Amino acid sequence: MKRIEGGICAISGVRASGARQGRYGLALIAASGAAAGMFTTNKVRAAPLDVTFEHLEGFGHLEGIIANSGCANAYTGQRGREDAKAMARLLAGFLGTEEMKIAVASTGVIGRYMDMALMAGLFHQAKARLRSDAQASAEAARAIMTTDTRVKEIAVEHQGLRVAGIVKGAGMIEPNMATMLCFLYTDANVSVEALKECLRDAVKDSFNMLTVDGDTSTNDTVLLTATGKIKCRLEVFREALGFVCMELARMMARDGEGASKYFETAVFGARSEEDARAVARAVARSSLVKTAVYGADPNWGRIICAVGYSGAAVDPGKISLGLEGGGLKVALVERGKIMEGVLEAAKKIMKGDAITINVDLDLGTASARSFGCDLTHGYVDINANYTT
Amino acid sequence: MKRIEGGICAISGVRASGARQGRYGLALIAASGAAAGMFTTNKVRAAPLDVTFEHLEGFGHLEGIIANSGCANAYTGQRGREDAKAMARLLAGFLGTEEMKIAVASTGVIGRYMDMALMAGLFHQAKARLRSDAQASAEAARAIMTTDTRVKEIAVEHQGLRVAGIVKGAGMIEPNMATMLCFLYTDANVSVEALKECLRDAVKDSFNMLTVDGDTSTNDTVLLTATGKIKCRLEVFREALGFVCMELARMMARDGEGASKYFETAVFGARSEEDARAVARAVARSSLVKTAVYGADPNWGRIICAVGYSGAAVDPGKISLGLEGGGLKVALVERGKIMEGVLEAAKKIMKGDAITINVDLDLGTASARSFGCDLTHGYVDINANYTT
Repeated sequence: MKRIEGGICAISGVRASGARQGRYGLALIAASGAAAGMFTTNKVRAAPLDVTFEHLEGFGHLEGIIANSGCANAYTGQRGREDAKAMARLLAGFLGTEEMKIAVASTGVIGRYMDMALMAGLFHQAKARLRSDAQASAEAARAIMTTDTRVKEIAVEHQGLRVAGIVKGAGMIEPNMATMLCFLYTDANVSVEALKECLRDAVKDSFNMLTVDGDTSTNDTVLLTATGKIKCRLEVFREALGFVCMELARMMARDGEGASKYFETAVFGARSEEDARAVARAVARSSLVKTAVYGADPNWGRIICAVGYSGAAVDPGKISLGLEGGGLKVALVERGKIMEGVLEAAKKIMKGDAITINVDLDLGTASARSFGCDLTHGYVDINANYTT
Repeated sequence: MKRIEGGICAISGVRASGARQGRYGLALIAASGAAAGMFTTNKVRAAPLDVTFEHLEGFGHLEGIIANSGCANAYTGQRGREDAKAMARLLAGFLGTEEMKIAVASTGVIGRYMDMALMAGLFHQAKARLRSDAQASAEAARAIMTTDTRVKEIAVEHQGLRVAGIVKGAGMIEPNMATMLCFLYTDANVSVEALKECLRDAVKDSFNMLTVDGDTSTNDTVLLTATGKIKCRLEVFREALGFVCMELARMMARDGEGASKYFETAVFGARSEEDARAVARAVARSSLVKTAVYGADPNWGRIICAVGYSGAAVDPGKISLGLEGGGLKVALVERGKIMEGVLEAAKKIMKGDAITINVDLDLGTASARSFGCDLTHGYVDINANYTT
């Protein structure tokens, strides 16, 4: 797996651009190919998701994506649906294709109608800049940022094929996908069915194991388009896609709202994969673990507590628990036994800005890994006055 | 329902006392009667809970309770169990009863062994003060406080019988009971079986609908002792017990760690009671709703979002949503329609320190109510450096 430059424009045939005005932004991406998507599980699903879902179901093919930030176009009923379709028509008209071959995505405040005049203005700016260079990918990624503090993109080359993606998402992030918009591209030649299956697998171990605040958004969208220029073995593509999604998930955790530190929770020895995932998520989303990480407090009892309420099969007397980070590794509990004289080393690790919590349940062979960040004053600041 | 003074000592025959030294405290309560208990669902369950559970199962009768703060005696294995039994023996010896008739409870840091010398010292102080007056109840309540900022106690008289309780709990609080220790007393004559049933019902609608931070503790304990001096109809007792538990739950939400505001979420029109409870809890535990309450931001989209991911049956087009507080009431959404020109009124309500969020799903007749508080800088401060 080789990292390369260029973001999504590292994939031949992908053009991108973006425009911003204050809180509002619009990204355009043009690329022709087989496509698959995944959407939020929230029962209040934003209008653009319904529209995009229908388009993907109809054709399994995309010519482009139009995505805005600032307004989620969620809980906006029939009017929201018309607005989403109008956005698709804007890009379809410009690309000379059908509305049904355009995906629409939105992120921002829920329960507000789209300002379509503003969108038209941003579209006018963005369409003039649609192009294929590294700046174009970053520009599109920047246009969809809300509380994100940095552009999040990646491109890799793996045994001749390429996979790339941009992502936005910093808050309202919880397993079952984040408040995230993620647009993935590949030059691999893969069928729609295989795209769907590989995407489902990749999302399961990456975005679905990511938590910032435990809130599942109304707007989560992951779209994958394959231009089909490179013949490949499916397994090679699957590996590259899995890597790209995992790295994007890590970037999102690192850029979590107000985050000062990043931590992964690695669970081993679970009785089932479901159990392993439940434990990894429970630790990642615990407000008490998150504040302890913020304060570099090696209060490992809170980790054990989260393991206990995760719902997974747990034998307290068999649990091993350790911390890892900055080249150090320390065992805090070994098979239920509290280790003595290790708190200083634990504290040193907790002071780092990237920490791994290792939990071995010793009940089986299943494992899982979750991605999270600390809970800080910054998170409270950002979210206490979001719409005002 | 008449509120009376005296806390648990308002129940004839109940004696109490407490002692503190720094972070550590010890409460003693002596009262003879039929007893029932409820305990955490966390699979990592603290040693005193196992001991108390066995004692209650064996006799269904208590002579007293010994409860400490500062150390949770959780994840402490066989040694923790011996320590919990030793605590029971201390009080049993003083009261001249059997170890099996004493309940033990603990709250504090997880994964630390008890300092039994310190406990012996606190016990020595507390036993000398065991008495039956209003100060004694508050003293016991204060002895078990951790991050609590105020004594939480209540006593009521209802059609001739009395029910009273003290409670501690401010953080690590989540449906399925809080990090809470709650000791309830009544003079009603009620069988052990009826006590169990009434307690289960009362806890379901009170402590199990309370959330501060979504963490379910290892130590949650609710104990109810009935001295049996007053003959009564079971329904009268059930009403009084339900009222007392609800009021104690409200006190805990108001005193949530770092809380500056209190909010209830009232759900109506759910298809099932389970759905109603799921929605009420999802809104109460949403970090985004909690930070919006803190910032007095009428960002109601976050409430709709939490309703959507609660898991309950929801038809977005049927939801009605409103806010209530400080004598004002405003409808933000009516059967899926966003109301215009109401945000200023909503903001005024959000500025108050007690807010009710009303959600009508319009899918059935089930209702539920949850109790929560805002997420503030204070919460982060308290929990970033708890053990250090």
